[in-house]
Amino acid sequence: MNLARVSQILSGFLLFFSLVELVPLAVSWFEAPPVAKGIDAKMGFLSGSAIGLLLAGLFHLAGRGARPEFFRREALLVVALAWLLASGVGALPFLWSGALPTAPDALYESVSGLTTCGGTVFTSGPNFAVEDLPASILLWRALLHLMGGLGILLMFLVLLPIMGAATGKSLLASEATGVAAETLSPRMQEQAHALFRVYLGLIGLDTLGLWLLGMSGFDAFCHACATVATGGFSTRNYSIGQYGSVGIEVWTTAFMFLGACNFILLHDLVRARFRNPLLLWRNDEFRFFLGCTVVAVAFVAFRLHAWGQRMEDPALGRVHDYGDLLVCLREASFNVVSYMSTTGFATADFQNWPRVTIFVLILGVLMGGCTGSTGGSVKALRVLVTWRLLAYSLRHFIRPKSVEKIKLDGEALSATTMTAVLSTTLLWLLVLAAGTLVMSLDPRLDLLSSFTANAANMANCGPALTAVRETAPGLFAVANTGDLNLGPYGGYGGLDGWTKLLLAAQMLFGRLEIYTLLAVLAPMFWRRT
Amino acid sequence: MNLARVSQILSGFLLFFSLVELVPLAVSWFEAPPVAKGIDAKMGFLSGSAIGLLLAGLFHLAGRGARPEFFRREALLVVALAWLLASGVGALPFLWSGALPTAPDALYESVSGLTTCGGTVFTSGPNFAVEDLPASILLWRALLHLMGGLGILLMFLVLLPIMGAATGKSLLASEATGVAAETLSPRMQEQAHALFRVYLGLIGLDTLGLWLLGMSGFDAFCHACATVATGGFSTRNYSIGQYGSVGIEVWTTAFMFLGACNFILLHDLVRARFRNPLLLWRNDEFRFFLGCTVVAVAFVAFRLHAWGQRMEDPALGRVHDYGDLLVCLREASFNVVSYMSTTGFATADFQNWPRVTIFVLILGVLMGGCTGSTGGSVKALRVLVTWRLLAYSLRHFIRPKSVEKIKLDGEALSATTMTAVLSTTLLWLLVLAAGTLVMSLDPRLDLLSSFTANAANMANCGPALTAVRETAPGLFAVANTGDLNLGPYGGYGGLDGWTKLLLAAQMLFGRLEIYTLLAVLAPMFWRRT
Repeated sequence: MNLARVSQILSGFLLFFSLVELVPLAVSWFEAPPVAKGIDAKMGFLSGSAIGLLLAGLFHLAGRGARPEFFRREALLVVALAWLLASGVGALPFLWSGALPTAPDALYESVSGLTTCGGTVFTSGPNFAVEDLPASILLWRALLHLMGGLGILLMFLVLLPIMGAATGKSLLASEATGVAAETLSPRMQEQAHALFRVYLGLIGLDTLGLWLLGMSGFDAFCHACATVATGGFSTRNYSIGQYGSVGIEVWTTAFMFLGACNFILLHDLVRARFRNPLLLWRNDEFRFFLGCTVVAVAFVAFRLHAWGQRMEDPALGRVHDYGDLLVCLREASFNVVSYMSTTGFATADFQNWPRVTIFVLILGVLMGGCTGSTGGSVKALRVLVTWRLLAYSLRHFIRPKSVEKIKLDGEALSATTMTAVLSTTLLWLLVLAAGTLVMSLDPRLDLLSSFTANAANMANCGPALTAVRETAPGLFAVANTGDLNLGPYGGYGGLDGWTKLLLAAQMLFGRLEIYTLLAVLAPMFWRRT
Repeated sequence: MNLARVSQILSGFLLFFSLVELVPLAVSWFEAPPVAKGIDAKMGFLSGSAIGLLLAGLFHLAGRGARPEFFRREALLVVALAWLLASGVGALPFLWSGALPTAPDALYESVSGLTTCGGTVFTSGPNFAVEDLPASILLWRALLHLMGGLGILLMFLVLLPIMGAATGKSLLASEATGVAAETLSPRMQEQAHALFRVYLGLIGLDTLGLWLLGMSGFDAFCHACATVATGGFSTRNYSIGQYGSVGIEVWTTAFMFLGACNFILLHDLVRARFRNPLLLWRNDEFRFFLGCTVVAVAFVAFRLHAWGQRMEDPALGRVHDYGDLLVCLREASFNVVSYMSTTGFATADFQNWPRVTIFVLILGVLMGGCTGSTGGSVKALRVLVTWRLLAYSLRHFIRPKSVEKIKLDGEALSATTMTAVLSTTLLWLLVLAAGTLVMSLDPRLDLLSSFTANAANMANCGPALTAVRETAPGLFAVANTGDLNLGPYGGYGGLDGWTKLLLAAQMLFGRLEIYTLLAVLAPMFWRRT
């Protein structure tokens, strides 16, 4: 293990991370009043970036004169440590500014930002509401999403080829080279730049659109970061719905969907100047994801319309009239796309919706976006391959002698790829189940809350669901004791410290495709060969 | 598809089934009073066996002059139809005697008996309590278990080799021949006889022991059938705990465990006159199952003792004092083995136990017994292979160049076997999840009830768990509305008809290893090649 080289790379990473932290520091310098509600943002960012720079210096010293060898295990260690260090350093401004009271709170918020999860501990429990926060803190949350998205795209190039998972046609070629000899091959550097251009271009376009649709420039930028990174942090207590604007919702729906598409595909589409829209259609994963989205939206809209209730919404101060088909379509498309892309914005407290629509949301979040996107969860590709494999195994069971290949984008998948996909899917479900069991040891949580909280966090979506009971006709209340609404209008602030840390770990497991974290924790990883 | 030959075989099967039904008919003739509480058992068995014989006749006519060809698809069809027909015919005595009010009730009870599930619709909802039933009906429930167990063992010989699943060393050889040419090869007939001898021998021994320990001969036989078939139907309202006898509980624990062991292994052990007990130890699956059982029992006993509460038990009219380590050991061993072997007897309402012990029970039931046993669920072998495969995939992720084989009983597993094991496990979990979602559309059920009911029925265990809340210190009540206690002291009688049918389907899915039922339902199955 070439630890010196690992230190060297991490030093550069921490330097970049701390320099970005100077942006909210600058904002906090000029925002007035300097200390609002006991939150000293300037202090938080000053000490936070100082610690970041100090660590960068220490890693630089440890990495002096490193040999250039850089193999698979070094790459895995860099990825795992980069996320862990960023989570720790990113949490400091929350803690030391006094915006969040405890270290688990700050860590949860930081990890949630970086993994583009978007679950929050604000606006719940004893914590501040989002709208009470100074602009610099809100900006830091948006920047965590922004950097997280960059990290995810970069990791996609480095990790997925290593994992031997099917990663879409244009990346299958790089499987052979991997990252055996250097950090990033020239081909990968080129691809990274392409992905970054698409990513930053989408954020710019989204910001512009939101601003034209009536948001302030600041809100537009924060929401654009949260949308394209499929994060979900909002600058409003009750998310996007608070703007009450059809335009903003439709625009955001479009960009959430784009954020969950394979960025390499999007780049190819842009490079061909949109003269080849069939490019998307010819991609199996995109077609599958699009199909699932359309079916889910239609089903939820139809079910909501059939339900037809008028739902009071005290948070937004208006009524959702599901007797109106347009309202159903608007809310179904926004919230289903939000869940399927694992963004986690909401425009309604869908905990009160009919149960079957909630199940559609849960299934959507368990699938998630496409590979090569900023979306989280199991990924549409794995679900598709698993589905084809199960259908194949049934056909094989009926006629064992028929010779047949499982194909993706017209190419046969190797046995290794299929085993990798199946075991990742299964491992994902097992880690989810384990987290659910551990979390529901908290006597205040029922199984639904615990399961959906783990699913929403592992899938990097954000809001969970809490059992909601009708206390009187049309009047709903969260069934759990006290202030434990983990739903779209709630947050994770009311949980215990250990539960917050558990969920933070689940976010990292989900984001690092489980294996990366497990590998670094395995004794075998550290053994010499 | 040689439907005539299929009919021929089913005709013989139905004849056997209907003749067995004459035993409870004879009992009902002599029991007094002939019609108790509106239950006319004689009528039920008369018309039930008449319909069975009539169907046997019709199938016989349809099967006249059948060609002898019998291939894989014919075998699958026979297996699926035999279970479905037996379920239907077996339900008639319950319905037509008036013991159960509706067809879904009767079907549930019949399927539960045949799949050796042991969940019951008696003693709950509007239905009779078990202790109100005439002896002939109780005997019929025991005989359904008995025949179900025979069917499972026979199916194990026919199906598992077809499925290409790893089936333990002594059966791996038969994979090559399968059932391509005839119903049962001579080698398989021999093995079937061996399995049946072990099975019936165990039931005899268990009956004798229970009788010597103080049960009536009738109760002893019924409980022995339920124990060795890992079923769980009792002749008492609140199961085995009602006898309040340590001897009966320990004896039953031993036989539940034996019922969940591979019967081929047990037969080899008997044939070697117990001079070779290491035979068991050298079997990977047995060692794994034993290890899990010991760890689970120790953990639950320890946790109960640490909890140390005195639990009132109005049903049994006594107090469980978990301050006493012996009480903890006794109840932990009985109930953990009952769940892990998927029998489903209970000696305590463990819904009130600490949450973590309930999770151990859930995990136990999701694993289940060994292959080649009467136990249900995913099976210890698949869990073991999946575990080894996941551990291997992590090692492979860290060092992709290391060449390594996954072994079972010292032999390397083929890629086909591993894919089969993984996809069966995954499919199992998916069917479980689908059932959970569908069932929880019943607004009276929370997610925990719905999940555990589906798990316990698919795993052919029986009792589920319902959310229990402490209403006052030491006083517990089921959290669901009304009479919906699905736990060990409750039953499924309070559910709607469609939920009962759903659970009956889940039992069959679980018992027929999912693929058999799915295959027969697939259009491809019926296409000519």
